[in-house]
Amino acid sequence: MKNRVITISREFGSGGRTIGRAVAEALGIPCYDHELLQEIAAKSGFAEAYIRDAGEYAPGGMIASAFSHQPSGPNNADYLWEIQYKLITELAEKGPCVIVGRCADYILRDKADCLRVFIHADMAFRAKRIVDVYGEREASPEQRLRDKDKRRAAYHRFYTDMKWGHAQNYDVTLNSGTLGLDACVRIIKSLY
Amino acid sequence: MKNRVITISREFGSGGRTIGRAVAEALGIPCYDHELLQEIAAKSGFAEAYIRDAGEYAPGGMIASAFSHQPSGPNNADYLWEIQYKLITELAEKGPCVIVGRCADYILRDKADCLRVFIHADMAFRAKRIVDVYGEREASPEQRLRDKDKRRAAYHRFYTDMKWGHAQNYDVTLNSGTLGLDACVRIIKSLY
Repeated sequence: MKNRVITISREFGSGGRTIGRAVAEALGIPCYDHELLQEIAAKSGFAEAYIRDAGEYAPGGMIASAFSHQPSGPNNADYLWEIQYKLITELAEKGPCVIVGRCADYILRDKADCLRVFIHADMAFRAKRIVDVYGEREASPEQRLRDKDKRRAAYHRFYTDMKWGHAQNYDVTLNSGTLGLDACVRIIKSLY
Repeated sequence: MKNRVITISREFGSGGRTIGRAVAEALGIPCYDHELLQEIAAKSGFAEAYIRDAGEYAPGGMIASAFSHQPSGPNNADYLWEIQYKLITELAEKGPCVIVGRCADYILRDKADCLRVFIHADMAFRAKRIVDVYGEREASPEQRLRDKDKRRAAYHRFYTDMKWGHAQNYDVTLNSGTLGLDACVRIIKSLY
């Protein structure tokens, strides 16, 4: 099996983005993550920070609008989803790459030779890691993780109808906390 | 991290047992699967075939008894669980090994250095495989798979309170259908 594209979904703080970058570097192929945000920003006219929140961590408003009884056309989140969908499809057609987040696994499910990866770790590992990487915040690391997990799962479920973190949705899932980031990179590389 | 014990949970027909045996052989350590059934049979006085059904694929009766309003002591399934629990704990203490099925991942969660693996594959791959390995039956392969999946998940949930197939319960989950059995063996071996 030739996997032209590697998609990495990940729990916040699990190191999935770091793993994605390391895999891409080792394989000599591009990794899209922040770059995706920039492209979506350029195409949509929205600010990157807005897209980061609206696009990945489903805001209350977006989910609320979906269940609203008031008739309404597509909202900002739907508009961004559309742009994101097209962009990811185009990138996958362009050549081999790693794509982190943004429901790429779902978007490419019928369109590309995909190795679909999910990275997770337990709360203690991730709590330590987000403080190391992103620094302290007013909310405790555990609170921040619970909030991000909830929003990411809700966004994913809303647009893909797939259960977040269900083994059956992926080719491989890895616990970066027990296996270590290096082992994760090695395994993904070996499957490409 | 030194993983002394490898536990393999698997969807029926995914090749998890075959993978477990190959990993054990490559590492030169024992693999417990049928052997576990034989030991439980010897200790309990029940026939192996009964244990296979009662112990792994929760029979309606067992689940029904759990929700029954009639006061009752432990039933056969609880009695077998007790024996299985002790046996798996003892085996893990004895030395490195691979244990296939029987909720070993849950039983050893606090007791051993465990590499917890889950093997799955899509319906088409498993349907083809169970016909190749176990032959035709009156029920269609898809019906057989749906039935086994349901029973295995119910048994696992009943005794462990963990969600079957949830990535977060494992160190690594692998899709044997897309990756191939050999790649699964190689990855598990490399993590030991």
